[in-house]
Amino acid sequence: MSDVWLNSLITATPQEGFELAITLSRRGVKYTQPDTAVLKELRPEYAHSADALTAASHVIAVNFQTVAAANNYWRG
Amino acid sequence: MSDVWLNSLITATPQEGFELAITLSRRGVKYTQPDTAVLKELRPEYAHSADALTAASHVIAVNFQTVAAANNYWRG
Amino acid sequence: MSDVWLNSLITATPQEGFELAITLSRRGVKYTQPDTAVLKELRPEYAHSADALTAASHVIAVNFQTVAAANNYWRG
Amino acid sequence: MSDVWLNSLITATPQEGFELAITLSRRGVKYTQPDTAVLKELRPEYAHSADALTAASHVIAVNFQTVAAANNYWRG
Amino acid sequence: MSDVWLNSLITATPQEGFELAITLSRRGVKYTQPDTAVLKELRPEYAHSADALTAASHVIAVNFQTVAAANNYWRG
Amino acid sequence: MSDVWLNSLITATPQEGFELAITLSRRGVKYTQPDTAVLKELRPEYAHSADALTAASHVIAVNFQTVAAANNYWRG
Repeated sequence: MSDVWLNSLITATPQEGFELAITLSRRGVKYTQPDTAVLKELRPEYAHSADALTAASHVIAVNFQTVAAANNYWRG
Repeated sequence: MSDVWLNSLITATPQEGFELAITLSRRGVKYTQPDTAVLKELRPEYAHSADALTAASHVIAVNFQTVAAANNYWRG
Repeated sequence: MSDVWLNSLITATPQEGFELAITLSRRGVKYTQPDTAVLKELRPEYAHSADALTAASHVIAVNFQTVAAANNYWRG
Repeated sequence: MSDVWLNSLITATPQEGFELAITLSRRGVKYTQPDTAVLKELRPEYAHSADALTAASHVIAVNFQTVAAANNYWRG
Repeated sequence: MSDVWLNSLITATPQEGFELAITLSRRGVKYTQPDTAVLKELRPEYAHSADALTAASHVIAVNFQTVAAANNYWRG
Repeated sequence: MSDVWLNSLITATPQEGFELAITLSRRGVKYTQPDTAVLKELRPEYAHSADALTAASHVIAVNFQTVAAANNYWRG
């Protein structure tokens, strides 16, 4: 994966920061399984499992800690 | 999800901060599974599983760390 | 849940801070499943599972990080 | 549990800090299941499961972060 | 494992930092199971499990917190 | 376990810090199950499970956060 997809952790708003945390979480998956066809196949099962959705939200929360700290919590 | 739902991590009280952490945790789920009908279907099983409830509380705890740090722990 | 249950993260001692972390962990569960009858039903199974008890201790540990930081680790 | 078991997070050495992290992890279990007879019953299964032992080590690691920060990492 | 593989946590960009977090996550596996033949055998099952991929992304997120803090979040 | 095994969190290099994080992770297991014969028995199953290896890497990542912070991320 030689493309550039992450230039900065700084975002204008906390919501954009949260969305960046989602991107980071997905990239963590994609680096491990780069084949998007496989990822697409896994999706239906995944998106219908409460446990899997909670686990996804957990990873987002961890990445959001990083992005929020980077932005000094958008304190103003 | 183009609506604006997160303008600030600053809250008046720790309890409001905890409730914001819950919102963040649910949004993490919703970004992954935006279909509210599916989420509603998953709810009964989910809300009757001790493991799932503990996992939900775990995600809230991680997000509460972020919100609490943003608010300097409401020390002042 | 409109009652006020969390006014401050500051506690007199680390032990009270640990007990507040337990309260936070339980509240995370209760916001997700507010029906106390259901929670009571889940308890016997839960309290006899080593995995569930470890998971509960994990959530408490995460919340204790927050409470301990809020109190500057009761250093003074 | 009205006894006093935690007066301070400060320890003389990092190893004592690690052992305090173990105490915190066990207390997290004990507050949830105070019946020591039940805990004793769970032990054999627990102590022979690689997954359970890793999960226990994980909780200790989280609590050790707290204790280590409280002690400024025993740097001085 | 006596080879030198980690000289610094400092990276030029956040993306390189994320990739270093992936390296750290893989090294954590490799120290536990150094036999690369075994690791190769585990890969197909692993890379086709949504739960395993989320768990991998979780570990990367934790390591990325460390690398990001080391780099002051590439703020400047 | 009365032997001294942890005198300091300070290491010369990040790699030594990572290896200390592995030691901490293993000690967390060993305090819970001190019988090395049992640990040896668990090893084959453990070292051939992708989930167990990821979980091990996760614990190492958490401990590495602590060690890296203690060393100011080996920045200087």
